[in-house]
Amino acid sequence: MKKARAVALNIPDIGIHHPASQQVFAWERWLAHQILALLGRPPVSLVLWNGEEIAATQGTPVARIVLRNRAALYQLIAHPDLHFGDLYSTGGIEVEGELGELLDSLYHSSRSAEGSAAIKHWQSRIFTRPRSNGLDDASGNIHHHYDLSNDFYALWLDREMQYTCAYFPAPAMTLEAAQIAKMDLVCRKLQLRPGERVVEAGCGWGGLARHMARRYGVHVSSYNISHEQILYARAHSEGVDNVEYIQDDYRNITGQYDAFVSIGMLEHVGVEHYRELGEVMHRALTPEGRGLIHTLGRNRSAPLNAWIERRIFPGAHPPTLREMMDIFEPREFSVLDVENLRLHYAKTMEHWLARFEQHASTVEAMFDRNFVRAWRLYLAGSLAAFNSGSLQLFQVVFTRGTNNKLPWSRAHIYQSAEGGEHSDQPL
Amino acid sequence: MKKARAVALNIPDIGIHHPASQQVFAWERWLAHQILALLGRPPVSLVLWNGEEIAATQGTPVARIVLRNRAALYQLIAHPDLHFGDLYSTGGIEVEGELGELLDSLYHSSRSAEGSAAIKHWQSRIFTRPRSNGLDDASGNIHHHYDLSNDFYALWLDREMQYTCAYFPAPAMTLEAAQIAKMDLVCRKLQLRPGERVVEAGCGWGGLARHMARRYGVHVSSYNISHEQILYARAHSEGVDNVEYIQDDYRNITGQYDAFVSIGMLEHVGVEHYRELGEVMHRALTPEGRGLIHTLGRNRSAPLNAWIERRIFPGAHPPTLREMMDIFEPREFSVLDVENLRLHYAKTMEHWLARFEQHASTVEAMFDRNFVRAWRLYLAGSLAAFNSGSLQLFQVVFTRGTNNKLPWSRAHIYQSAEGGEHSDQPL
Repeated sequence: MKKARAVALNIPDIGIHHPASQQVFAWERWLAHQILALLGRPPVSLVLWNGEEIAATQGTPVARIVLRNRAALYQLIAHPDLHFGDLYSTGGIEVEGELGELLDSLYHSSRSAEGSAAIKHWQSRIFTRPRSNGLDDASGNIHHHYDLSNDFYALWLDREMQYTCAYFPAPAMTLEAAQIAKMDLVCRKLQLRPGERVVEAGCGWGGLARHMARRYGVHVSSYNISHEQILYARAHSEGVDNVEYIQDDYRNITGQYDAFVSIGMLEHVGVEHYRELGEVMHRALTPEGRGLIHTLGRNRSAPLNAWIERRIFPGAHPPTLREMMDIFEPREFSVLDVENLRLHYAKTMEHWLARFEQHASTVEAMFDRNFVRAWRLYLAGSLAAFNSGSLQLFQVVFTRGTNNKLPWSRAHIYQSAEGGEHSDQPL
Repeated sequence: MKKARAVALNIPDIGIHHPASQQVFAWERWLAHQILALLGRPPVSLVLWNGEEIAATQGTPVARIVLRNRAALYQLIAHPDLHFGDLYSTGGIEVEGELGELLDSLYHSSRSAEGSAAIKHWQSRIFTRPRSNGLDDASGNIHHHYDLSNDFYALWLDREMQYTCAYFPAPAMTLEAAQIAKMDLVCRKLQLRPGERVVEAGCGWGGLARHMARRYGVHVSSYNISHEQILYARAHSEGVDNVEYIQDDYRNITGQYDAFVSIGMLEHVGVEHYRELGEVMHRALTPEGRGLIHTLGRNRSAPLNAWIERRIFPGAHPPTLREMMDIFEPREFSVLDVENLRLHYAKTMEHWLARFEQHASTVEAMFDRNFVRAWRLYLAGSLAAFNSGSLQLFQVVFTRGTNNKLPWSRAHIYQSAEGGEHSDQPL
């Protein structure tokens, strides 16, 4: 248990020294005011360790952030993005009020304050470069997150263990249905035909590969560097023909394929490797091959939240469309279709968070209380990020620039499958 | 007549001096071979002014390029992209064989040769910066092309005078139907609702504005700096409520709108003004406003063909998606949907070229023979550029990054209108 926790949340003692008394000094009060100002003056108050409240200067307060000790104040001012998460996880900060509302209001206030030079200065200070994702590092970074425990993810993911944005053409769909709808959306965009060969870069627990092989009659080679996920995928695909799970890096993909698909891997590739990914696609695709990349994204370039990048997804980066062009331009791939599914990820996060909360006591027994608090913050924070427009979800369909075998419209994506199982209800 | 021609095709005498004899010197034969090599050795032969043929070194020849005099050879080697067009227009070059096939083969051979350092060097030599599109210049550049003559364009455009890519969800549609389908595609992507206010940047002859007002019940303010087009648009919109045509630059747009639309204007804006366009959109759009930009594009940055940029579309540039991000990123617009309609523009060009050829004698009477040859080359060359993947056509839908009033799927775009008039037939 302790070992699992150490893998998941490797929070160091940052060793800031501070006066031992409970007294609040004048400069500490000033620092507390600065924190609120730097956050864009959200409708949130800060409660200090002696019970003193630094009130919000505008709006009806949605929550109170309680700093349990003065170390929390110093850590927060030193690196707010990183330490808010660590302090919340370890109990150095408590939130009185609804965590989701607090996070929503923090996203909105920091957006409205983004014109201020102070915030820009502060943001530049908290910028942290994502870790390297060279071949050696990539395995460690992915191990950190995805090998946590299949049992843990099974508690709150859908039956197919899809740990990526679902697709809710009708927003009242269940998570299970929406994850199947996502897989069908991907397969339709790729126009898979029976007998075709598909290569998947980053296959998670193997659900999409199974789905493509079973429902679309294609041959799938799926790559993943996570040992735990590959074992799970193989165990759950017994009896499914034409699926091969390969524990290897996407850069080692061999063979020629009619379609290339990558769902939720690009976040872990690193911008400096995008051109390399384009080379892999160039090698792997037939002249009329199609591809789809599904990824977290940004409207404007910014690193992932520092705490999430350090504690949850080491090395992760959500690219802008501009950054993604490093994949496509050098080998003159042609972007055919981009769809932004931002609100679908917000809804996915709502489902995950609700399921996670249902199993919080089980998670606490598997790990510990800090782990539960960290994951709660991560899921609620991601929900707020998608709802506020801070994060995007892009699906990009592409082909070679010389391929003229293209559909004349995207209507085929929105035709109901026979039996209506995957009907896309417009709103 | 002569005046109109001078506006359209301002071909200077470049004054290259050359030996007067008909004899072909050894270095001229070498230069002719160099031209074929630099074009990536297309299946095309060069016939020199003395009748001597420089044969294609590979493939079955699809056409012969006849150089009528030695000046043609020197001009071609000096600036092939620019002078091929001028020489063809003025008869210094003749094409024996099908012009379209020749242009297709030139596009394909230059693509396959693109890895060679020689071609890259050659391409860098022919690079010409598009003209400036500052407020003063923009009017002159647009006058050059669009004020040519409404009667001329009426000969070969559709009834609604749409001089932009049509939409052929069924490729056998007529041009008239496909241009209406294009307008409906745009309106559906923008989710126009009766009573909403729409601003259009660059309205051509006003067809889309009329269509939006009549069929979708919206109020439209359409901007265009072409005097001839504005007069035409006003004359053809009598009795249509809620359409206002304004002869002014897009940078002078005032007011607040539920939708921003721009079809075929971005090509003329100039990359250095994209941020300014984003500012205009930021000022003009309501918090939940949607926008659509429809533009020529590239998979990888390159200037427009030099001859087309000089003689047909002064100042024009087809942007990459990367370049377009200068419009959206600074004000954090969120790209919701990108569709690449490249082959639809090839089909549109096919229709235009066929109609143009039907009226070639009328065009010659309106202008002269050189004008007919220049426009034939421009239309056939554009057709080849879209078919070969050298040019793209992007439709980009966007909204503010904070707008959460988004459709849950794009299925609404593909639902047949009642009566089926605008049905999108999938293939």
